[in-house]
Amino acid sequence: MQDWTITTEGKLYRQFLFTDFSACLAFMVRAGIAMEKMNHHAEWFNVYNRLEVWLCTHDAGNQVTEKDHKLAEKLDLLYRADA
Amino acid sequence: MQDWTITTEGKLYRQFLFTDFSACLAFMVRAGIAMEKMNHHAEWFNVYNRLEVWLCTHDAGNQVTEKDHKLAEKLDLLYRADA
Amino acid sequence: MQDWTITTEGKLYRQFLFTDFSACLAFMVRAGIAMEKMNHHAEWFNVYNRLEVWLCTHDAGNQVTEKDHKLAEKLDLLYRADA
Amino acid sequence: MQDWTITTEGKLYRQFLFTDFSACLAFMVRAGIAMEKMNHHAEWFNVYNRLEVWLCTHDAGNQVTEKDHKLAEKLDLLYRADA
Repeated sequence: MQDWTITTEGKLYRQFLFTDFSACLAFMVRAGIAMEKMNHHAEWFNVYNRLEVWLCTHDAGNQVTEKDHKLAEKLDLLYRADA
Repeated sequence: MQDWTITTEGKLYRQFLFTDFSACLAFMVRAGIAMEKMNHHAEWFNVYNRLEVWLCTHDAGNQVTEKDHKLAEKLDLLYRADA
Repeated sequence: MQDWTITTEGKLYRQFLFTDFSACLAFMVRAGIAMEKMNHHAEWFNVYNRLEVWLCTHDAGNQVTEKDHKLAEKLDLLYRADA
Repeated sequence: MQDWTITTEGKLYRQFLFTDFSACLAFMVRAGIAMEKMNHHAEWFNVYNRLEVWLCTHDAGNQVTEKDHKLAEKLDLLYRADA
């Protein structure tokens, strides 16, 4: 979790970098499947090989909860598997 | 192009809505292939079934160019094919 | 389920056709998410805009079970939503 | 190219294995983008974490051509980047 920070809005935030756009989009597909299975969806922004992710739990008043920490760890795991 | 607006930063902007996250991610894959083939990549933000897209041409000083209009039309076409 | 047949091996089989490869791949992403959530995966073959799907339940001795019928109906639903 | 064989039909053939279905589907998205950009599409079969690929050039009477060798090398490269 060392690559994640807390934004001024109180969300967990991390940036992921990839070789190129297709590597980034493939990661989004894999991460997207994980998010669907957890029924917990990130806010994410992409341009070319860069992906920015914000995590918070809307049902909990946009606070960071255990669900966000679990998803952050999952994304880290998938990113390391890729890189 | 009627669904697109110009942001205060001078970018073309549109929001796309989908049935659910998987429909949105599938659209991103299809649109992503089109972007790769045009070698022109959007800035885009997604959460669940909502996709926001910003288009400008970085090589042209972040102005909106013919490439952006072509990509906007392509995204509209793919979205209509989906909906 | 009228578009599905039973192969000589006893599997449920259907062919899906799309506009082009990117439409087919986008469908596979959407269908793939559904399969992951059901924890039930098709055997499928793709070339360009054509997708062939075979369904059977490996844990049930490769017979067609209720799980396969549910997945077949889901794939039909996603295909109709697309077309 | 050491992992590829020639089938009795004269096609280039290779099997790819992944951690799980989502890793395999992500690879298919990345490989699919490469295929679209080369305008050369594989025949491929997937079930869960296994992907089988056959390459030949339909326009050249289903023979293996330089286009197939280039695509095979590209798939190998993407697979190594993943693994």
